[in-house]
Amino acid sequence: MTDLIIIGGGPAGYHAAELAANAGLSTVLFEKRSLGGVCLNEGCIPSKALLYSAKLYDQARTSKKYGVTCENPALDYAAAVKRKDKVVRKLVAGIEQSLKKAGAEIIREAAVIEGRSGDGFSVSGRQAKYLLICSGSEPVLPPIKGIETALTNREILALTEIPETLNIIGGGVIGLEMASLFNSAGSKVTVYEMLDKIAGPFDREISDMLQKQYEKKGVTFKLNTQVAEITGATLVSAGRRPNAKGFGLENIGLDTVTTDERMKTAVPNVYAAGDVNGKSMLAHTANRAAEVALNNTLGKKDAMEYNAIPSVIYTNPEAACIGETLESARSKGIDASETKLPMQYSGRFMAENEGGEGIIKLVWRKDRLIGAHMLGNPCSEIIPALSPILHREMSLEQIKKLVFPHPTVAEIIKEAVFHA
Amino acid sequence: MTDLIIIGGGPAGYHAAELAANAGLSTVLFEKRSLGGVCLNEGCIPSKALLYSAKLYDQARTSKKYGVTCENPALDYAAAVKRKDKVVRKLVAGIEQSLKKAGAEIIREAAVIEGRSGDGFSVSGRQAKYLLICSGSEPVLPPIKGIETALTNREILALTEIPETLNIIGGGVIGLEMASLFNSAGSKVTVYEMLDKIAGPFDREISDMLQKQYEKKGVTFKLNTQVAEITGATLVSAGRRPNAKGFGLENIGLDTVTTDERMKTAVPNVYAAGDVNGKSMLAHTANRAAEVALNNTLGKKDAMEYNAIPSVIYTNPEAACIGETLESARSKGIDASETKLPMQYSGRFMAENEGGEGIIKLVWRKDRLIGAHMLGNPCSEIIPALSPILHREMSLEQIKKLVFPHPTVAEIIKEAVFHA
Repeated sequence: MTDLIIIGGGPAGYHAAELAANAGLSTVLFEKRSLGGVCLNEGCIPSKALLYSAKLYDQARTSKKYGVTCENPALDYAAAVKRKDKVVRKLVAGIEQSLKKAGAEIIREAAVIEGRSGDGFSVSGRQAKYLLICSGSEPVLPPIKGIETALTNREILALTEIPETLNIIGGGVIGLEMASLFNSAGSKVTVYEMLDKIAGPFDREISDMLQKQYEKKGVTFKLNTQVAEITGATLVSAGRRPNAKGFGLENIGLDTVTTDERMKTAVPNVYAAGDVNGKSMLAHTANRAAEVALNNTLGKKDAMEYNAIPSVIYTNPEAACIGETLESARSKGIDASETKLPMQYSGRFMAENEGGEGIIKLVWRKDRLIGAHMLGNPCSEIIPALSPILHREMSLEQIKKLVFPHPTVAEIIKEAVFHA
Repeated sequence: MTDLIIIGGGPAGYHAAELAANAGLSTVLFEKRSLGGVCLNEGCIPSKALLYSAKLYDQARTSKKYGVTCENPALDYAAAVKRKDKVVRKLVAGIEQSLKKAGAEIIREAAVIEGRSGDGFSVSGRQAKYLLICSGSEPVLPPIKGIETALTNREILALTEIPETLNIIGGGVIGLEMASLFNSAGSKVTVYEMLDKIAGPFDREISDMLQKQYEKKGVTFKLNTQVAEITGATLVSAGRRPNAKGFGLENIGLDTVTTDERMKTAVPNVYAAGDVNGKSMLAHTANRAAEVALNNTLGKKDAMEYNAIPSVIYTNPEAACIGETLESARSKGIDASETKLPMQYSGRFMAENEGGEGIIKLVWRKDRLIGAHMLGNPCSEIIPALSPILHREMSLEQIKKLVFPHPTVAEIIKEAVFHA
């Protein structure tokens, strides 16, 4: 009997498998598609590779204001896609190498949970004492006429030609990143959103600023809008739902996968991590949840916390957030206040963003920072500085004592703290 | 009698003046040149504006590997300089506005300390109870034949044409940033360094990697080399020394400006902040030191700490560090260990740095992180995440619980922690 069977080799599953094998557990990982899951193969990474090509193309067309000129800038989209595929292949190979080095066994087929077996569980003919469910999520396909013709994240990232027009159903993270990519690449993009704002739970002011910036670039937004019928090239990015059907969870008595703070499911010795628990469908949440699940499997105390998980939208400019918005805090009855400052208070932002607009917003509960929200490059790489600050619940006076390098855009955090 | 006279309107002086006036002190700031000091007018900011133009020019010439092509890329250096001047003007105006809003009085002339006056001090005919010396630093001009023809940071940033060849004396931060700028812009650059490595106190492996990358780009490095005579366009960036002469410090009994952890000088009620104390000649150190000086002036406990001050070299790629190197830790008798990892472990680094090389190194004292060193873009904006971690002396197990967004280059910190 194996110590641990992991179902799914995405950001939760492959990380857990490497940690488990390195910790000495005999570990079997089932993955029916490609290691790395949606994130690495059809999500985060390929989109970022393509978005970077798009960003360079944007820069080639606008760098005159910085004294840099060039003629006939062009995006060879097929070449960008080819390079994206190469990046993905390298990273997938890197994961495989790490797992082999750690000594985890990889089984490249769909796992089927057959039921209990002695002290443990039987999965596709293999037995293990512990089970870790990392089966991820899949796109929600709303019952719209023509939905069968729609592209999901998988198909849109595999396109090798730019559609002349692109409709996007859903103005959340995926929808906005694809709107950004194809707008830069030359498509006429329209984003349809059911709610009265884009960018899901992001701060409303930042969502509005981002929408205005993309409207200036030619993207059309239709808010408060239900799509009745799909025609033409259409991306459906209307949310994702847990993958919890079709691989025998019912055979061990699990209908849905819910987890406690230790990532335990309702069945003893069965843990779950990643999108499948439906809580925070982000690769880095999955990564941390995998650690929590594994530590508890190993008998080490560890608990999942959701108060300091950052989130990024890789548009150009990027938006990033961590913790509460003023709105979410107040809806929880927290007596919260807010500090906001234009990004132009950062000298480096001024040096690198001619005519650019951005903002930082800090949300406080008394003197404790409980949320931060930013619009402006490169806030994806700056928001990590807030992670230890929120995690440690640092106070205003403590944050003031930190030293950030000058000149950086990250300094805007300290600048905003001095305006609190 | 005024509460506070501040001598020098650079990063220490203008920050202190704004905080002091906002705290209700009657505040007079003397500045003989332009508000913002060397950093804003002849250092950090203008160099970053020009380096960004150079980076865009680099990208225009190399973006084919990302599927983006353009013809005849060109750098209009005079236009880049003009834009740089505009950025500086805007930021200087912003400081003036903040100081006025706070109610600080600005006197645009050289201050002369005349001596004691009653309970306080007399400076250029004005009296104050407290004195804060923020007179900054100036370039060291070594006694080399022809030194009078050399350019300092001030003159080189004011050039409007690219020299065909450029000699740089001193391979520290300023020398390397200017080597990067003029190498990109088309000069034939040679860097002369007295020591056996470039980049001053930066980690030796990172310094060596940076040197190799610039050698590939065509920069020549002459290490262990003393320059005997200067001919042709030459930047002298051989260090800086405190500006402590010529404005009457001797009239209050101060020969040199040394400070304790509260930024107090040897004379009661006289504080100093910034480069003038010769400790860590960085704008962000100055900024923090100004806060410490002011808090102590106001009777609030505050002390300067030097263990978590980041430092950046804005080459392309950037290098950044915070805290101890393995070498510096061991030289202090610390039983230190090191974790290192190539940047290629970051998916985003792979997505945005085709063929690029970089590294992260973490230095540990037992399970506490005491240093971090990085080479690879955009590490200037990532190193701030280490600031709270080092400041709070977080342990390995605590750092593991932080969540960084995926995919970012910043994740390399967590990845490295899991390799410790």
